[in-house]
Amino acid sequence: MRMSELSAKSGVPIATIKYYLREGLLPQGRQLAATRAEYDESHLRRLRLIRALLEVGRLPVAAIKQVVAAVDDESLPLHTMLGTAHYALSPAVEHEHTEEWASALQAVDRLIAARGWHITPGAPARAELAQTVVRMRHLGLPVDLHPYAEAVDRLVKEVEMDKIPFDAPRDTAVEALVLGTVLYGRALDALRRLAQESESARRLGVSPPPAPDASAATAPPA
Amino acid sequence: MRMSELSAKSGVPIATIKYYLREGLLPQGRQLAATRAEYDESHLRRLRLIRALLEVGRLPVAAIKQVVAAVDDESLPLHTMLGTAHYALSPAVEHEHTEEWASALQAVDRLIAARGWHITPGAPARAELAQTVVRMRHLGLPVDLHPYAEAVDRLVKEVEMDKIPFDAPRDTAVEALVLGTVLYGRALDALRRLAQESESARRLGVSPPPAPDASAATAPPA
Repeated sequence: MRMSELSAKSGVPIATIKYYLREGLLPQGRQLAATRAEYDESHLRRLRLIRALLEVGRLPVAAIKQVVAAVDDESLPLHTMLGTAHYALSPAVEHEHTEEWASALQAVDRLIAARGWHITPGAPARAELAQTVVRMRHLGLPVDLHPYAEAVDRLVKEVEMDKIPFDAPRDTAVEALVLGTVLYGRALDALRRLAQESESARRLGVSPPPAPDASAATAPPA
Repeated sequence: MRMSELSAKSGVPIATIKYYLREGLLPQGRQLAATRAEYDESHLRRLRLIRALLEVGRLPVAAIKQVVAAVDDESLPLHTMLGTAHYALSPAVEHEHTEEWASALQAVDRLIAARGWHITPGAPARAELAQTVVRMRHLGLPVDLHPYAEAVDRLVKEVEMDKIPFDAPRDTAVEALVLGTVLYGRALDALRRLAQESESARRLGVSPPPAPDASAATAPPA
């Protein structure tokens, strides 16, 4: 297809497609003449991936370049390629070199071992969790994260990973991983807040609303 | 105690304490002389709350003012007061007036009803979830959120809400709610990414590392 058709099908403006071509995010089309190139399904798929990384993952262009390079390097095993995308989605955490940090990292590693998880030492989520543990300890909060680890472990094993099409083209698998990680993560967070509101109402006796025949008056829902 | 002692005990610089006094975030001390005021434990507690809202909740000063006003208004029921803090932590979502939005909101309300949750229609997490559902549908992702709702419901009921000291001073209860919502939310997100990495490795056959006597060769961990 011509660039105008690629633009129409993907919803990405021509000027933006040209920018992606210049930046090397999108592979060049097959050159038909000096000013004519031909694009195919792989270009459409790549545009979808770039938009997902940009709009849903909110990745900077430099990070998108790294992910796209990993997708294109077919010598990389699938797990490494997906890991590159997954790691790019994580906020950067500055490693500290304090006793507190070392102790928090030990606690995180004990948790990982207790669940039997297979995690590379450089996983950004490992450092992120250690930083959160440091913060919790500063504030005197209890750091029993086992129930949290168990809850997400079940969710990931029984539901989430079934959505990743591991045998689809590499672009498609990465896209599913990025969308899944970010959007279901946002949904999970919103659902947790809803559950908190509901349970807080229940414990404080403002829910459920009194049935019409209820004799005891309860506080109205806030 | 004098302001210098309040500063030392809270770790908040005197200039910052004066700013909080001017902004009405911190109640005035008991005036002993024209230039001397006396502060007590309630001021220390309030400073802890302000710092928690600011540093952990990342709330702007205007939002902190609203939360503090709700804490101070003793005529507000506890649930409403805690709700003010909880809602302040949520990102603002612009309501859309489209068919898609209405349909997504219906899906969210069905989910809420299915779990028997008691939620006010103005809950920011309800709008946030509807927005995420719109996005998922645009991208062709399956929107079965029941397993997610079930997972957080169990976590909140069995673990999280036990950490909120509902009968403590209002400042303390709000602080616990804010810290709990934000920090355990961050921990949950990091743990989910760890579980995803581990499960992805397992499914792609790069974990567990082969035992010394394994006869079949497997790919090395990425």
